[in-house]
Amino acid sequence: MAEHIVILAGGVGGAKLVQGFADICPPKRLSVVGNVADDWEFHGLWVSPDIDTLTYTLAGLIDEQKGWGVREESFRALGLLNRLGKETWMQLGDQDFGLHIYRTERRRKGERPSVIAREIAERLGVRVPILLPTDDPVHTRVQTPAGWLAFQEYFVRERCAPPVHDVRFDGAERATATPEVLGALDRADLIVIAPSNPIVSIGPILAVPGIRRAIERSRALKLAISPIVGGRAIKGPAAEMLRTLGHTADARGVAKLYAGLVDAFVIDEVDRSEAAALSALGLSIWVEQTVMRTREEKCHLAERLLKRASLATKDQGVA
Amino acid sequence: MAEHIVILAGGVGGAKLVQGFADICPPKRLSVVGNVADDWEFHGLWVSPDIDTLTYTLAGLIDEQKGWGVREESFRALGLLNRLGKETWMQLGDQDFGLHIYRTERRRKGERPSVIAREIAERLGVRVPILLPTDDPVHTRVQTPAGWLAFQEYFVRERCAPPVHDVRFDGAERATATPEVLGALDRADLIVIAPSNPIVSIGPILAVPGIRRAIERSRALKLAISPIVGGRAIKGPAAEMLRTLGHTADARGVAKLYAGLVDAFVIDEVDRSEAAALSALGLSIWVEQTVMRTREEKCHLAERLLKRASLATKDQGVA
Repeated sequence: MAEHIVILAGGVGGAKLVQGFADICPPKRLSVVGNVADDWEFHGLWVSPDIDTLTYTLAGLIDEQKGWGVREESFRALGLLNRLGKETWMQLGDQDFGLHIYRTERRRKGERPSVIAREIAERLGVRVPILLPTDDPVHTRVQTPAGWLAFQEYFVRERCAPPVHDVRFDGAERATATPEVLGALDRADLIVIAPSNPIVSIGPILAVPGIRRAIERSRALKLAISPIVGGRAIKGPAAEMLRTLGHTADARGVAKLYAGLVDAFVIDEVDRSEAAALSALGLSIWVEQTVMRTREEKCHLAERLLKRASLATKDQGVA
Repeated sequence: MAEHIVILAGGVGGAKLVQGFADICPPKRLSVVGNVADDWEFHGLWVSPDIDTLTYTLAGLIDEQKGWGVREESFRALGLLNRLGKETWMQLGDQDFGLHIYRTERRRKGERPSVIAREIAERLGVRVPILLPTDDPVHTRVQTPAGWLAFQEYFVRERCAPPVHDVRFDGAERATATPEVLGALDRADLIVIAPSNPIVSIGPILAVPGIRRAIERSRALKLAISPIVGGRAIKGPAAEMLRTLGHTADARGVAKLYAGLVDAFVIDEVDRSEAAALSALGLSIWVEQTVMRTREEKCHLAERLLKRASLATKDQGVA
């Protein structure tokens, strides 16, 4: 069995898989690398949606229905901001605001975002380390017919409606990977890319200089799970985005993005018929039930992946 | 009847009188000058308790029971800050936080605090202008046996328990009075000092260079209402503070502070027997029912003051 597992994860979909692993692994054997390129300032406060989704999920605070935000949340602070004439399309709850206020105060003091995120998670009872790929600002922007939008403008305000013709990660080139992430990747004997959007969730993590190379160099077994099942994204705009960016909106489109980086690519049972063709990409194709509707399904997927990873490692290669 | 009335007011007690005047006067005939020296930064946000109490009162949002804060407020953001290990003795509600977030964002952009306060009030439906004495930072500090404390530390965290041996208004000497306040005082034909703490509510307003002199020079009729009734403050630490600072903890102690600044001093009916002796301070003494428990009592006091002011003005002097 893997001694140290690093999971690269975006928001909702990634958090589900992370929760599955967290349920079956001791916390010290896991590290989660989250996405900070969705971070954005709202009302003068630093909001970090993907990291918060991971944190709330692992803290048991998450609204399971929505997949993000705190359960039984209220929106009174936002209501007052609305009365004061502010745009309030970003649904920030009252407890959320407490968190953003806390993070913003510490960031303004010049503290490392990684340290702040770690301490928030610890205070909320999370035992699995949630690592930031970088402490530097990286901002995803998407090009739409209306021009370049900040990711949250596209994702929340525009509800992912506009076609995305290009994506960039402002600041990524100048960003420095955190020693925590490089250290975790160095120790890893299993690296898992969660079923998150490969372009705007996993993409900005891999865009931080040094991270992709650390994964490539790692002797760990590397897996990626397709976020596209039966030609559709479980959640979010991944399928449409793949299409408008010139990829195919299916598991194959995702597999091609990860070919050369991972050893095995995990597709859902509904896509079983594609397995043979996908093997031609030089990837080992694992077929599993990847859709996680319940806590049990999350654990089940994590267990299956760990078991297959263990077998693959024993065989000195990927079966 | 007075054409333009300026009320100098602190927090809870001042807001009650202001509400009485607001109920019986057209808004454009009133200006309220609030206290900004209680302002303090909490969790990186700029909190302005006295101004907010005035705003919430005039907006009809105030928690009438407590006299401060928004009615039916929740404290979920504060609860999260508490979970994150922050000191949360300052009771900031969720709607409060919305307001503080709004103000802080605009202040960080360099906007004038006066303009921000005005626009907040307008957005919340307040039609009476709430003016800041200055846009510069002024901070009340009180000397206690435990050392100099920020006002909110003394007032909220220590619940006014420590004796106050000295008071200072940091920044007041360098502060510039706002043109709005000087303009309002210039137009005033009635200036009313509300039954607020003379030392830490009215004191810092008068400490802003130019404001005391503008009042002294004004040809308006000037009144002050005693916040001490029957030797006790209606609310807050005024009586104890007068005593430990070497004054008498009664209407007389307050009257002496305002002698030379105001024409008439308003005491409560329970202190009627002191009227003759107080006259010796060179003040006209008016006896009224000054304790305002209900909306009707607030209006009644405002009506009585307006009527007496009108008579006094007609007489070309104070009766």
